[in-house]
This record gives sequence, C-alpha cells and structure tokens, in this order.
Amino acid sequence: MRLRNVSYAIDKLKENNDIVVFQPEDKIDFTSFFPNDNEIHMEVGIGKGRFITTLARLNPHINYVGVEKYDSVLVRALERVELSKPENLLFICVDANNINNIVESNSIDRLYLNFSDPWPKNRHSKRRLTSDTFIDSYKKIMKDISEIHFKTDNRGLFEYSLESFNNYGLLLSNISLDLHNSDFEGNVETEYEEKFKNKGPIYRLEAKFK
Amino acid sequence: MRLRNVSYAIDKLKENNDIVVFQPEDKIDFTSFFPNDNEIHMEVGIGKGRFITTLARLNPHINYVGVEKYDSVLVRALERVELSKPENLLFICVDANNINNIVESNSIDRLYLNFSDPWPKNRHSKRRLTSDTFIDSYKKIMKDISEIHFKTDNRGLFEYSLESFNNYGLLLSNISLDLHNSDFEGNVETEYEEKFKNKGPIYRLEAKFK
Repeated sequence: MRLRNVSYAIDKLKENNDIVVFQPEDKIDFTSFFPNDNEIHMEVGIGKGRFITTLARLNPHINYVGVEKYDSVLVRALERVELSKPENLLFICVDANNINNIVESNSIDRLYLNFSDPWPKNRHSKRRLTSDTFIDSYKKIMKDISEIHFKTDNRGLFEYSLESFNNYGLLLSNISLDLHNSDFEGNVETEYEEKFKNKGPIYRLEAKFK
Repeated sequence: MRLRNVSYAIDKLKENNDIVVFQPEDKIDFTSFFPNDNEIHMEVGIGKGRFITTLARLNPHINYVGVEKYDSVLVRALERVELSKPENLLFICVDANNINNIVESNSIDRLYLNFSDPWPKNRHSKRRLTSDTFIDSYKKIMKDISEIHFKTDNRGLFEYSLESFNNYGLLLSNISLDLHNSDFEGNVETEYEEKFKNKGPIYRLEAKFK
C-alpha cells in the first residue's frame, strides 16, 4: 500500500480513544470496550478498513478488532465510522510483532489476514504474516479450534502460506485458487481487492488450529 | 483423455510380457524385472507414457513402474519403447483400485500423479486419485518418508487435493500455482501438459508421508 503521511493522524487516533487504542504497552481489557460475551474476530493489517467495518455492520453480534501499524492508514478506517461508531468495533494501532504483549491469551475466535505484505525476498520470509513465527503468536491469543481466514492476490505468498500452515499442522479447508470465479458466497472485498480482482486470481484459504 | 479403441492392444500387451504385466491378480515380484536394488518410482495413470518413458531414459539408476488401466492407451506407451526396451521400465495394465493386491507393501520410493481424472461431481470425489481412500492405498505400498508428486491443470482437483493431502497429515512442499511461470527446474511434460500449458496455469505440489 502506498503510504501518504497524514499530519493529524496520531492526534485524531488518540482523541478517539473510545474506539481506538493507540500504541498500547500492556494487555488490553476487551470487556471494557465490548460489554458482552460475543465472539471476537480480529483482522491483522486492516489498511483503510473497508473489510472490517463492513463485517462489523453486517454482524452486530460479533465483536471486531482491527490491528494496523500505520497511523496514517488507520485514521482512514476511523474516518469511515467516526459519525456513528459501531459498538462492536475496536481499532488498535500497533505492530503485529507486539500482538502477544497487548492481547490476552485464548481470547480471539477468528483471525483475518487480507492481502498482507508479500515480502517477496526469501531472506525476509519471517516478516510474512503467515510465517511460523507469526502463527506461533496467533496460536497464543486464539481459542482452541479457531480459524485463520486468509486471502491474497500474491501467488508467491499464497504458495508459501499453504506450506507454512500445512507444515505447522493446521487443518486447511475451503481453499480457492480463483475466489472471484468460484461458488464462494458472502465474500467481503477489501479496497485493494476491488482494485486488483480483475488483474489475476484472488487466492483464499481457511486454516484451523486443531 | 479421449479413448480410441485399439483392436490389437490386449494381444500386443500380453506378447510383450518382458516389459508389461497385464491384469495381474497377485503381487508382482519387481526383482524379476529389475535385477538391482535401485529405487522404484511409480506413476499411476501414465496415459500414452511420455512422462515415465522420458524419466526412465533420463534416470537409468531409478526403476520406473507405470500403471494404466486402459489397454488401448497403454499400448501407445509400449510402442514408444518397443524397439529398445529400457531395463528400468515396467508397465502394468490394471485399475488403480487394485494396487494393494498387486504391489508389495513398503516397496515404492516415489509416486507420480499427473493430470488425473478430476471427477468434478462431488458425489464422485472418492474416485479422484488424491482422495483419502487412494492415499490409504498408496501409504501401504510406499516406503516411509516417501513422496507423492502431483500436477494438474484442473483448479477444482488441485484445491481438493491440497485439502485432502493436508487433512491426511502429509507434509506439503514445492507448491507451484503456475508451474510454467515459476523457477521450477527439470519439469518433464506429459502429452496433455504440452497441449494445455498455454490455456491456463499448471498446478504442482509434493506431499511427503511423515
């Protein structure tokens, strides 16, 4: 994603602390944001937030947590919802590397990864959000028998991720090698996906912790 | 594959019993065909045999066994090699469903599946050569830590097979979602592959028994 600096981003994110947690250093108490026992679904790398804000509107009985490291991007997601903030939506401005420091163990019911940075060079493979290091960190915060839903248009990243999830011991299901020419129903598009879905196949999978 | 009946196929296969085993009913003694301890690699569904006869020529220190159920197809493979029969090649005319009746346990070092029949209807999924029933039968005849190498141009079959191999507990590696636009080296093309490789991606994977 091309990054354009937004000068007021940090101030605005901090002001909206009813829906944004900015650079937390300790574990976040989700019950103080979500006054219910509903499932919590998390997206790591939400970009401008179209995917997660759409899901939050469609599914009021699920709580959504969106993680994004870039303040200038996250502020665009905030601006989508600032006029009528959904009660089931929370944004966190933080690097995914810190996720185990800020999210309680065994608290997340589903994880979404959409069009993550492919880090195409082999020497950067550990930075991919589907590497075993990241799967380790997801496993800690996710409940047993929970799922990761992943989609990308990057062939190399999808090939890598299939192997990474398989080699980790996750159970793969609903694999699609051309999502927009499949019978998959209910796909919610990201901004990026809408722009690039006609340039080549979108790949998708679900991976379950056993 | 379009099947054209060859009237003399059965007679010719039976005549060439130094390189063809026709509809065996008992376990085949490979040592009577291969007078060495070299690895045995098997292709199930060899079609007209370009793939396995090429490998046999390229790799004289590996023994190749090609399984094909249609006599009218297998006879074409035989005709490729009948003038100078390679010592490291054996054909078996048999249905893959019978493989455990005719191949000794723990005798095969590698298995190839190329452009297998996709059986696209869900109710026929057990007929796919990558279903768990067939993986069960391969596991019996294959050695520990041996590999299945699989390629196809059929998206649905590849999606199904990724899940089937993963769910069975096999270790996936070298996945390619576009073999002919990848850095994979040493690909040996089948007849079918040469004809269809420009119509869409060829998918490939390796799956290891742990």
